[in-house]
Amino acid sequence: MIAVDAMGGDHAPAEIVAGAIAAARDLGIRVAITGRPGQLRPLLTRLPASADVYIEPAEESVAMHEGALASWRRPRSSIAVACQLVRRGQAGAVVSAGSTGAIVATAKLRLRPVPGVARPALAVALPTRPTPTVLIDAGAIADPKPELLVQFAQLGVAYAEIAFGIAEPRVGLLTIGAEPGKGNKLARRGYELLDTDQPHGGLPISFAGNVEGGDLLSGKVDVIVTDGFTGNVALKTLEGTAKFAADQVREVLGSSRATWAAALLQRRGLRELNERFDPETYGGAALLGLEATVVIAHGAVTARGATAACKLAAELIERRITERIRERLGPSRAGHFLRRADRGPGGATGVVSH
Amino acid sequence: MIAVDAMGGDHAPAEIVAGAIAAARDLGIRVAITGRPGQLRPLLTRLPASADVYIEPAEESVAMHEGALASWRRPRSSIAVACQLVRRGQAGAVVSAGSTGAIVATAKLRLRPVPGVARPALAVALPTRPTPTVLIDAGAIADPKPELLVQFAQLGVAYAEIAFGIAEPRVGLLTIGAEPGKGNKLARRGYELLDTDQPHGGLPISFAGNVEGGDLLSGKVDVIVTDGFTGNVALKTLEGTAKFAADQVREVLGSSRATWAAALLQRRGLRELNERFDPETYGGAALLGLEATVVIAHGAVTARGATAACKLAAELIERRITERIRERLGPSRAGHFLRRADRGPGGATGVVSH
Repeated sequence: MIAVDAMGGDHAPAEIVAGAIAAARDLGIRVAITGRPGQLRPLLTRLPASADVYIEPAEESVAMHEGALASWRRPRSSIAVACQLVRRGQAGAVVSAGSTGAIVATAKLRLRPVPGVARPALAVALPTRPTPTVLIDAGAIADPKPELLVQFAQLGVAYAEIAFGIAEPRVGLLTIGAEPGKGNKLARRGYELLDTDQPHGGLPISFAGNVEGGDLLSGKVDVIVTDGFTGNVALKTLEGTAKFAADQVREVLGSSRATWAAALLQRRGLRELNERFDPETYGGAALLGLEATVVIAHGAVTARGATAACKLAAELIERRITERIRERLGPSRAGHFLRRADRGPGGATGVVSH
Repeated sequence: MIAVDAMGGDHAPAEIVAGAIAAARDLGIRVAITGRPGQLRPLLTRLPASADVYIEPAEESVAMHEGALASWRRPRSSIAVACQLVRRGQAGAVVSAGSTGAIVATAKLRLRPVPGVARPALAVALPTRPTPTVLIDAGAIADPKPELLVQFAQLGVAYAEIAFGIAEPRVGLLTIGAEPGKGNKLARRGYELLDTDQPHGGLPISFAGNVEGGDLLSGKVDVIVTDGFTGNVALKTLEGTAKFAADQVREVLGSSRATWAAALLQRRGLRELNERFDPETYGGAALLGLEATVVIAHGAVTARGATAACKLAAELIERRITERIRERLGPSRAGHFLRRADRGPGGATGVVSH
């Protein structure tokens, strides 16, 4: 089962619930939607008998402008309640289109890390072909220690394998020059750590060396590792530039009668192009390294995007992303984490297949 | 006079020299081209009598793949000789399309800083309208101290004023969230320093707060300040995404007979669009804060781009960018720099109007 925060997002709850219903109806995914029952119940009136959607009451919600502090201020928010469903073993993943800062903070507060993971990181899929490129960390940790970059690599590799079926994903380190030793202190030390045969006792990483900002969409590697500050700036720059270019194309196409006619001819091709940068298509970012994956859909998603996010979450559960992360990281190191034995039989993840 | 490194760039020396000749002929700029006389002399045979171009011999050159170490290895390289012309008071600016790393290192080694400038920084103009947005630092200093961010702001403001005629440029700090306190340690401390009325005794900065990656092309501010690591990643990401989008548009337009016909109709509009991201149009990046500005043209420039770089360099001299930087930074602080009195009458810049 997946837990969907029905109150997060610009078009919540109507579009989120509609997306969840579609996921349940068309994809057979079991869904719990969290939020105010009085608002949610009317949205379920047209629920087909075959769809398995139920309401888990949450009295509070986090506004889109609220940041990380909301995680403390609102213990009964719809996102907090979604995380609680995971803790109780009822859900295997969380979906939210709310404020990224609040989601990350709430998830870190309420969900346990996978053994071996020091801090969870945010992965986004960039629209390269034939398979997407995973950028990690896209904003969860602004000032990581170099050792964390190795962990980001392991999380990103697991994600590329599980979410996109990429065998032996190649990992690149985002920096400012192709040669080893280029970059700031963090990147230079990160290079040294990634460039060893078997970093930190985990599974080997196929490290392809440094990549630059121009490689985010080049498809040169499958996973691009960076700190959350640089990753977030790069991601926002990419999105902003793509939007800028799309606006420019639209302006050019709309700028005369002749081109207006031409634009009609090309509508289909341009639609395909737009979709490659469309958050509705991709399902969203994934917060990796906690006992359940949290899929963060774009704040502006409509029902279609919410369904895509539910689909991604269900696939991550079914293909056992958490198990894969644990495998990749190898035996957990003492001191950092609870030992597995403390967490009962059946694993610590509370993963329930949908 | 400007000193043009004739041997730097993918199409050096032919295209660079052709561009320098055009600048001399059409814009009345005095130019010294540095490089091997045997290679350069034949390129000057068609020089019109009115154009003032002479050859300054340099036996060595720096290959495009060479980095910062070339500045030590090749004291008689064409870029080093161009810098020497400034030191001797013969040139007021340097133009090169060579390897950025080698140019920056050579210039730092051979040119004095403006009093008050701890380290020079690289400024690029992003193609916003009506005026460009200055991104600084775009790659000169990967690990600056927070205090340097204030200096980058002063350099960027002087550049926006002088190169683009922007009155009271608004300055934004590149980070990962709009509110104060968002970002990594460097950005958070940078915010505090920029958010004071009169930072460090220089002229006041019109600080507009935080901006994000999506604002690089939004025109929200005139100057965007960041460290050289983040700035370079953002710049390369922007360029890569613009190229990706342009390739996609081309693919869509070329994908069927109907759209092929339509593409012809739109050729003009698309050409205008491409030009906005074309390094040939903008003249290049500027290394600011040394006794002479170094304009770094894109490695792939042809004659047209080389001319644009010469024009930018000449304008920066004529409008006294170095004086403006000194004014903005205010009285130099002891310990860091030579005092002005030590550097003779007429200023330390060796600026000669062209």
